[in-house]
Amino acid sequence: MAVTVVGSIAFDAVKTPFGVRERMLGGAAVHFALAASFFDEVRVVGPVGDDFGDAELDVLRARGVDVSDIEHVAGGETFFWSGVYGWDLNSRETLETRLGVFETFEPKLSAAARESEVLFLANIQPDIQRAVRAQCTGARFAALDSMNLWIDVARDSLVHTIAGVDCLVLNDAELKQLTGMPNTVKAAREVLSWGPPGPSSIIAKQGEYGATLITADGYFSLPAFPLEDVVDPTGAGDTFAGGFVGYIAACGGARDEELLRRAMAYGTALASFNVEEFGTERVARLTGGEIAERVRELERVTHFSDAPVTLRG
Amino acid sequence: MAVTVVGSIAFDAVKTPFGVRERMLGGAAVHFALAASFFDEVRVVGPVGDDFGDAELDVLRARGVDVSDIEHVAGGETFFWSGVYGWDLNSRETLETRLGVFETFEPKLSAAARESEVLFLANIQPDIQRAVRAQCTGARFAALDSMNLWIDVARDSLVHTIAGVDCLVLNDAELKQLTGMPNTVKAAREVLSWGPPGPSSIIAKQGEYGATLITADGYFSLPAFPLEDVVDPTGAGDTFAGGFVGYIAACGGARDEELLRRAMAYGTALASFNVEEFGTERVARLTGGEIAERVRELERVTHFSDAPVTLRG
Repeated sequence: MAVTVVGSIAFDAVKTPFGVRERMLGGAAVHFALAASFFDEVRVVGPVGDDFGDAELDVLRARGVDVSDIEHVAGGETFFWSGVYGWDLNSRETLETRLGVFETFEPKLSAAARESEVLFLANIQPDIQRAVRAQCTGARFAALDSMNLWIDVARDSLVHTIAGVDCLVLNDAELKQLTGMPNTVKAAREVLSWGPPGPSSIIAKQGEYGATLITADGYFSLPAFPLEDVVDPTGAGDTFAGGFVGYIAACGGARDEELLRRAMAYGTALASFNVEEFGTERVARLTGGEIAERVRELERVTHFSDAPVTLRG
Repeated sequence: MAVTVVGSIAFDAVKTPFGVRERMLGGAAVHFALAASFFDEVRVVGPVGDDFGDAELDVLRARGVDVSDIEHVAGGETFFWSGVYGWDLNSRETLETRLGVFETFEPKLSAAARESEVLFLANIQPDIQRAVRAQCTGARFAALDSMNLWIDVARDSLVHTIAGVDCLVLNDAELKQLTGMPNTVKAAREVLSWGPPGPSSIIAKQGEYGATLITADGYFSLPAFPLEDVVDPTGAGDTFAGGFVGYIAACGGARDEELLRRAMAYGTALASFNVEEFGTERVARLTGGEIAERVRELERVTHFSDAPVTLRG
């Protein structure tokens, strides 16, 4: 099934304890698209400025991503983000955000994008996400990511937007903030009650600890893939989402519990590659065989089976 | 196999968003002992003051714990800790610590304690832990917990002490601090290189996210048991350790990879009960059947199996 993603296409400046990049290709839609491209046709929707050229587009094209819905805004500047990570990469500070062409972005989707059966609304202003969702009349599965900024300044719109998608993907701290509930399971159950129809699955992203999937009847928690060397976490969440949503698309949109669990594993494997190098560097040259190997390894490092033991009392 | 635990026996004052206890039975050795008592004979070593009486001892005795190595220091005051937890229970502030009888504690183990085959050195000053380890000549499996305070003020002693045990159980942030390595896997591999003989297994406790086991050839990560209502996290780590070490004792000290993984599951299940009520309240009335049910549920909520999917490129 074809996948459309709308969201930021960006240049990032990133400093981590392991290096610096002054200007590299980034953005949620880009990270998502590269990951999802391993599973199905992917189309990116979003604006770029005069500073965005063939070198950047070629990173996407090389993975077979359809870039014809990327809108060049003449005279504009591409979205720019810069940030710095702390010692153990668990804290990050945003130094600068320049919205550029996103300040006036009004999505105009092509017929092909509107007819995509799978839609991912990456983290952007929730009004824009809702406008895109409304245009995508062909979408049979829509997922959404957001961030604390929109919970702070546009919560009502965000809640309204979430009610129109099938799956919410959010950092666990943001899920708690969104619902005002201090517990991830409770917070997820709260969102599952929104609608109608509202989301039927919630993914709480937990950074280096992994991710948890909560549905009406199901619960599944998957640790992150073990890594000794993490270089740059930027885009890990979007890469996870690309693997997760991409896997669902490749399976024809089916989403029973077992399939969603596998989709989580593919998302987790993809994200683990993303953080091993800066920006899109690692995923851009990734192979399907490498992904499959990490999914198998993830199965090995999470598996246990009970054996009878006599319990006293 | 008989288990001996040495560590704090305490009164705790705890405030969480869900309630307050001005003075309740606590301490690492107590939480550990109650959990381990479901698996094997447990003996607690540690000092208490005049304020500690039969009401407290009876909580341990009711679970079959041998309290004959609990030393009553006449005129002394039992260790006291008070703390307050934040909104989502992930942050906690210590308000007061009164060492009381621990200020002058010099462990004098009984013959039975010295001959225990399994030993847990709960979080106390590392010189004391090492003195106990040296006395326990019968121990075939020794595990140790510690905390940031000892890394700050007695790191050399702690490193020396860790080199004399088989298993280190530590919060992941403390494992990183101990080794100066920002990555959990790397930090664990560093500790595995200490010795000889040094620990052969490291458990990084990750609070609400679960725990990870790292051995020379193995890696296993297990999420926490899903709970909607967490009331008081105090003692969760020690309860986990009690389940983990207790399971190993019940299995005769065997510790192949599969068995260690199961031990992690029992520790995780025990800890999930501990946090549902204040202090020792829940574990004190727990049954073996309830533990077994949660281990089975943990197996269900962590299991996935891969299925072939065609990956593009």
